[in-house]
Amino acid sequence: MNNRAIGIGLLGMGVVGSEVARNLLQQAERLEKQVGRTLALRRVAVRDPGRHRDLSLPAALLTADPNAVIGDSSVHVVVELMGGLHPAGDCIRAALSQRKHVVTANKEVIAAYGPELTRLAEEHEVNLLFEASVGGGIPIIGPLRKDLLANHVSSIHAIINGTTNYILTRMSQEGASFQAALRQAQELGYAEANPANDVEGADAAYKLAILSSLAFHTPVTGSDVYREGISKLSAVDFRYARELGYAIKLLAIARQEDGAVSLRVHPCLLPADQLLAKVDGVFNAIEVEGDLVGKVVFHGRGAGPKPTASAVLGDIIEAARSFAEGRKPARSGSVSHALRVMPMDDLCTQYYFRVTVADRAGVLAKIATVLGDLSISIASVIQKASDAASQTAELVIMTHPAREAHVQQAIRHMQALDVVREVSSVIRVEARG
Amino acid sequence: MNNRAIGIGLLGMGVVGSEVARNLLQQAERLEKQVGRTLALRRVAVRDPGRHRDLSLPAALLTADPNAVIGDSSVHVVVELMGGLHPAGDCIRAALSQRKHVVTANKEVIAAYGPELTRLAEEHEVNLLFEASVGGGIPIIGPLRKDLLANHVSSIHAIINGTTNYILTRMSQEGASFQAALRQAQELGYAEANPANDVEGADAAYKLAILSSLAFHTPVTGSDVYREGISKLSAVDFRYARELGYAIKLLAIARQEDGAVSLRVHPCLLPADQLLAKVDGVFNAIEVEGDLVGKVVFHGRGAGPKPTASAVLGDIIEAARSFAEGRKPARSGSVSHALRVMPMDDLCTQYYFRVTVADRAGVLAKIATVLGDLSISIASVIQKASDAASQTAELVIMTHPAREAHVQQAIRHMQALDVVREVSSVIRVEARG
Repeated sequence: MNNRAIGIGLLGMGVVGSEVARNLLQQAERLEKQVGRTLALRRVAVRDPGRHRDLSLPAALLTADPNAVIGDSSVHVVVELMGGLHPAGDCIRAALSQRKHVVTANKEVIAAYGPELTRLAEEHEVNLLFEASVGGGIPIIGPLRKDLLANHVSSIHAIINGTTNYILTRMSQEGASFQAALRQAQELGYAEANPANDVEGADAAYKLAILSSLAFHTPVTGSDVYREGISKLSAVDFRYARELGYAIKLLAIARQEDGAVSLRVHPCLLPADQLLAKVDGVFNAIEVEGDLVGKVVFHGRGAGPKPTASAVLGDIIEAARSFAEGRKPARSGSVSHALRVMPMDDLCTQYYFRVTVADRAGVLAKIATVLGDLSISIASVIQKASDAASQTAELVIMTHPAREAHVQQAIRHMQALDVVREVSSVIRVEARG
Repeated sequence: MNNRAIGIGLLGMGVVGSEVARNLLQQAERLEKQVGRTLALRRVAVRDPGRHRDLSLPAALLTADPNAVIGDSSVHVVVELMGGLHPAGDCIRAALSQRKHVVTANKEVIAAYGPELTRLAEEHEVNLLFEASVGGGIPIIGPLRKDLLANHVSSIHAIINGTTNYILTRMSQEGASFQAALRQAQELGYAEANPANDVEGADAAYKLAILSSLAFHTPVTGSDVYREGISKLSAVDFRYARELGYAIKLLAIARQEDGAVSLRVHPCLLPADQLLAKVDGVFNAIEVEGDLVGKVVFHGRGAGPKPTASAVLGDIIEAARSFAEGRKPARSGSVSHALRVMPMDDLCTQYYFRVTVADRAGVLAKIATVLGDLSISIASVIQKASDAASQTAELVIMTHPAREAHVQQAIRHMQALDVVREVSSVIRVEARG
């Protein structure tokens, strides 16, 4: 066995970076068995090299300069765990250009520059691996890049943000408000102090862009994804949904039809007996449907230092093997055709409305007229508890498939009715077979 | 693009072989995009080349001699879909020795000779790929060989036989007897005329051996796996299990502890709220637990021509890319240590007993004494319907964790009691956190 060590350079020492470093140091033997060569942590770029670290790394390893890591001739694999677009994107570019293998968990960078960086990696015959960018430790990038390649993938349905799934689970199981559930998530470290990136769906949109690019062999970026967060959901919607046989989940959905892809992240009513409806707490699940494989679901912990380190270290092993054996990296799936992104207005799906109305006769007729005029056909209406004090009642309306553009118009028209106090909730319904 | 075609040779044209051939012919463009080169089906070995085939293959392609396919110099990738140990094992050996890449769906061969054939493939610098051997189209071999490699895998819990899971689902949902559910499965083509291989657990044992070899980096064969089939289960056990909050599934379980592995396939009581308990019909699911990733579950169609072809074609793409790019195949995970196989007698788990007893006072005391004398501690006892005609009653006993050897002794001692008519069922309970 050739045992010259393979040099690893680390950019970023947050919770994931620390866990990766801990494994490189403390599980060296296990990793060496899998690679056939020793992995040596050679340089680590951190924001403040003077700050105390949990791991007793020799001070000489630490630097504040990412380029000192990338440019170190004893570093063969650069592991980018800084997060955020800048300077991470430039660091990855620099590393690939210097023929370093790159492993990253950075969903933002891959969602924005994935195809460009993949070309750069192929040009320099090095690996660019990003299994950890989606679904934490759940193997999903590997299967899409390899095992499922023979399929024409028609759709992806995914719960890929643990923070929001935790919040929705609390709201569903305890009738908690969004604010209360968010506070709980923050106390447990599942949500950040500024939770916007998670609760407004941006994080899930990045991840969906990455999955879609691979599944559909087309360049998709985060900004191609329509998104709507969970902050406007009410506890009462969960109760009504349950009565109707549905769960409410923040779904990331990509669908390929007629040479176009629709890409969206928003709360969804999902039939309670479906596998995704049963994914609770901080867990993630990704369902891929292909013409050969049918539906295949990947389920596990989508975040956290250990699961994410599992994916990062798996990629490090792959990059290190490839370096050790002088293998050229495998071609990535071809990004052959640029599919059109379907405008959200053209979406055709079912809808759940909760409308607060004046508690008197004739109200339903007026609402039904608004919907009927826009070709929105009603599947069911239930009148819920009236409030004597405010003299209002709630109507819960489920529609048959309708066009999004019409639904948006209908919302405006309903709000203009004198009998309507408020269109309180509009949630899309994903009722699949 | 270098467009000399890559030659594919097919051994076997059953339902899976036909589906693979159909895709090679009809989805040639899709596959070419992923490989970067054309895939050409060059030779096909079938039992009877004269028999009518669905696909209109030129007669010149067909031969009855597998060696004519393997030895054909225009064949670069040999796809073995004959099934069974002989002559498939020798065909794979011959192909690897002639430096042909090999793709197989053959669980029996891989379970028996996996480590030997893997060494042979490495020696000749070709790929031996067998994603289709476990779980049909579900990507599980790839993730174990790559994505999850950084983990110390502690256990695998899997539903990996669609036939038995279909039968158990019918028994559970309709109160059907084993024989009736089996007939139903046979009518639908989910069970073979001779169903022994599936219902007695041999098929699941092969697959568990393959998964365990990869997960624990140790050579495991099908004969290392303890197995017990489902033919002795009664409809009444499903009812009692449900009342106690459990489902009954045929589980394949592998666990690594203290330098040993325990390997077993048998019916199990499984808490109804667990993901695996909800896997119904012909679906498969594989749960892998690792120290970093936690529990990750892979779910999908575990059999059928299309899902299996998805995995076979994915492997063909990988082998063809590797051939086209002149890449050496990736090293497989090291098979570094031979772990001891734990004797079944040493298993420690919980048990469900259904005992048919004389319907009179004092019976429970006698049974409790038998169990107590063997250090088997009772968690709960429920007396079920007595039968006035035969003057018998049923006792359903759940135990705390006990040693298998003691439980086997207890069964004999109970059967010897004059008050016991029959120990009607003994089912192990998998009660995990």
